[in-house]
Amino acid sequence: MITISKPTLILNKERCMDNITRMQEKAKNSNVHFRPHFKTHQSAFIGNWFRRQGIHSITVSSASMAKYFSAYGWRDITIAFPVNLLEMNILSELANEVNLNIILDSTEVLPYLEAGLNYQVGIFIEIDTGDHRSGVIWKDTAAIDKIMEHLSLSVKLKFKGFLTHSGHTYHADSPETIRDIFKDTVQKLQYLKGLYQEAWPDLVLSVGDTPSCSLVEDLGGVDEIRPGNFVFYDLMQYSLGACTLNDIAVTVACPIVGRNLSRNEIIIYGGANHFSKDFLFRSNGERIYGYAVLFEEGAWSHPINGAFLSDLKQEHGIIKAPREVVEELRIGDVIGILPVHSCLTAHLLKGYQTLEGENIMY
Amino acid sequence: MITISKPTLILNKERCMDNITRMQEKAKNSNVHFRPHFKTHQSAFIGNWFRRQGIHSITVSSASMAKYFSAYGWRDITIAFPVNLLEMNILSELANEVNLNIILDSTEVLPYLEAGLNYQVGIFIEIDTGDHRSGVIWKDTAAIDKIMEHLSLSVKLKFKGFLTHSGHTYHADSPETIRDIFKDTVQKLQYLKGLYQEAWPDLVLSVGDTPSCSLVEDLGGVDEIRPGNFVFYDLMQYSLGACTLNDIAVTVACPIVGRNLSRNEIIIYGGANHFSKDFLFRSNGERIYGYAVLFEEGAWSHPINGAFLSDLKQEHGIIKAPREVVEELRIGDVIGILPVHSCLTAHLLKGYQTLEGENIMY
Repeated sequence: MITISKPTLILNKERCMDNITRMQEKAKNSNVHFRPHFKTHQSAFIGNWFRRQGIHSITVSSASMAKYFSAYGWRDITIAFPVNLLEMNILSELANEVNLNIILDSTEVLPYLEAGLNYQVGIFIEIDTGDHRSGVIWKDTAAIDKIMEHLSLSVKLKFKGFLTHSGHTYHADSPETIRDIFKDTVQKLQYLKGLYQEAWPDLVLSVGDTPSCSLVEDLGGVDEIRPGNFVFYDLMQYSLGACTLNDIAVTVACPIVGRNLSRNEIIIYGGANHFSKDFLFRSNGERIYGYAVLFEEGAWSHPINGAFLSDLKQEHGIIKAPREVVEELRIGDVIGILPVHSCLTAHLLKGYQTLEGENIMY
Repeated sequence: MITISKPTLILNKERCMDNITRMQEKAKNSNVHFRPHFKTHQSAFIGNWFRRQGIHSITVSSASMAKYFSAYGWRDITIAFPVNLLEMNILSELANEVNLNIILDSTEVLPYLEAGLNYQVGIFIEIDTGDHRSGVIWKDTAAIDKIMEHLSLSVKLKFKGFLTHSGHTYHADSPETIRDIFKDTVQKLQYLKGLYQEAWPDLVLSVGDTPSCSLVEDLGGVDEIRPGNFVFYDLMQYSLGACTLNDIAVTVACPIVGRNLSRNEIIIYGGANHFSKDFLFRSNGERIYGYAVLFEEGAWSHPINGAFLSDLKQEHGIIKAPREVVEELRIGDVIGILPVHSCLTAHLLKGYQTLEGENIMY
């Protein structure tokens, strides 16, 4: 059984390994390069599980995260986040230590990179294929040409290819829509490849999001995938159809600290400080911050029927549950919560405890 | 000016001190005991500012937080969070080191406390005056009597009084409603005082929330206040009318990493990993995750007219702003974000940098 005293991220190592293997197999079968995003687990220890599977190139979302993984021997890192000019010294150090790729979407940062970097870095041009977060709009080839013009003359900044994150898959209403978004993304990136391949025969098309990498069978059409969340999955991915409940590899073990039989509620130690505040909607408009599960020998159960985390305060969580469940559980028992967004939850809780009781602290 | 390289919590020490002084004065004038909640800042360093003002009793929201502040010399601590039986050993240790009060709302935990604690602790019965998070419903005197019956015979568990958190003030539509909730809370607690004062002449009525402690002029009617958020305030409190924009003592300095002139957006390094995900609504239903400010010599500006943090990804934030603002700012500039919920933001960012450049790391 689970031995904890406060909210603790419990990891099903077997599922996690299966998730890694499955994505790696798919990449291999699709003949695309696998560069998993490590922002979800942020753990050198879990990183080693990838390494033992023969994975040597990774994606991160900040210079600090790149530095962290560089210290643990990772030598091929893409920072898939717009260049932060205020960390130029870290970027320059990193460029000396590892094969570093960075991304940009305008010429604005180019003179600063030329002046600030002492070593060569790879440059991906970030393309907006529909997510509208960052990136050059895919058809704005005038803007791309301006960047290319600079890169073609640069010694320090070596053009690598086009990179996109189709985050709009997170707003899709069905797996079919997600597959359509992937197709659309491939078409837009292939259009760019068609335009620039003659001058840059080795250019790489790199895509990222877990929903499409999970739902699309053949990922060919791009050259590289960078999913991150798949390592754990979560209720958000489940709601999108990107995973089953049995693929979710993390749950948060929380002490029960109260029961309310008049409202059929269970109060847990586990709040916004542990889960962050992403939520899903029930069909009646109520918010769901997580599903409740019970711990069994070396496993956790399927979600308890009719039970869900309905509210989060800073440290409290409120589970609504059928009366018989509230009656059966006791203050001092431990209950598990399948999180809505495992990346944010893992960032807050830092360490992991495996179902076998192993503590992963880095 | 502000020197940062990644999202950093900037503290206006003067405002923070003013907020402390103002609340302390109000408590004094109302003749109520001031036991500030330290869950907002979670900092021993900032705790010392309170101590220098003559404040010696505090509130925290977990056994770990109590332990932390105990290590920094705090000797009178109330854990205003339901007893976590899984941390009994920490509670017992703490009860030896400090004057410890804990809260409970049922008899369920009593035998465990009797068996697990080696030293006396103070017990507040948590009362639900309308928030419906935890606590005995105020009029359920049968349930209260059952707890009292036990406490009256206990040597280890010393009844201290009734404690409530009127968190429903956070859903109030006007300052008047908040004042009405306070009045209502006082009436309900006074009703209980009336019933139990003869047997327990020293019983304390303790209330907590920042909105009512800020908006009610005379806090008499209760014996103790435990506000926490007032030390920094935030946009949530501002939206409730509990503070002015000039009372907000923290802002998050974020590097600008992108600009989009076609959508009039600024992209910052600063996302859910730094702010958590509480939001307010604009009148048109759009979400606001923060207001944008500019840093000036030793200060930050009033919010930029028409600019707001409109979306948060894990590490990215998107600011919508008038075109002339997007044109004027540059990648590599630093912009400030007034957070919606300073408690969650401070929990994520940990340290502080004062406007004077002092770094507060604990």
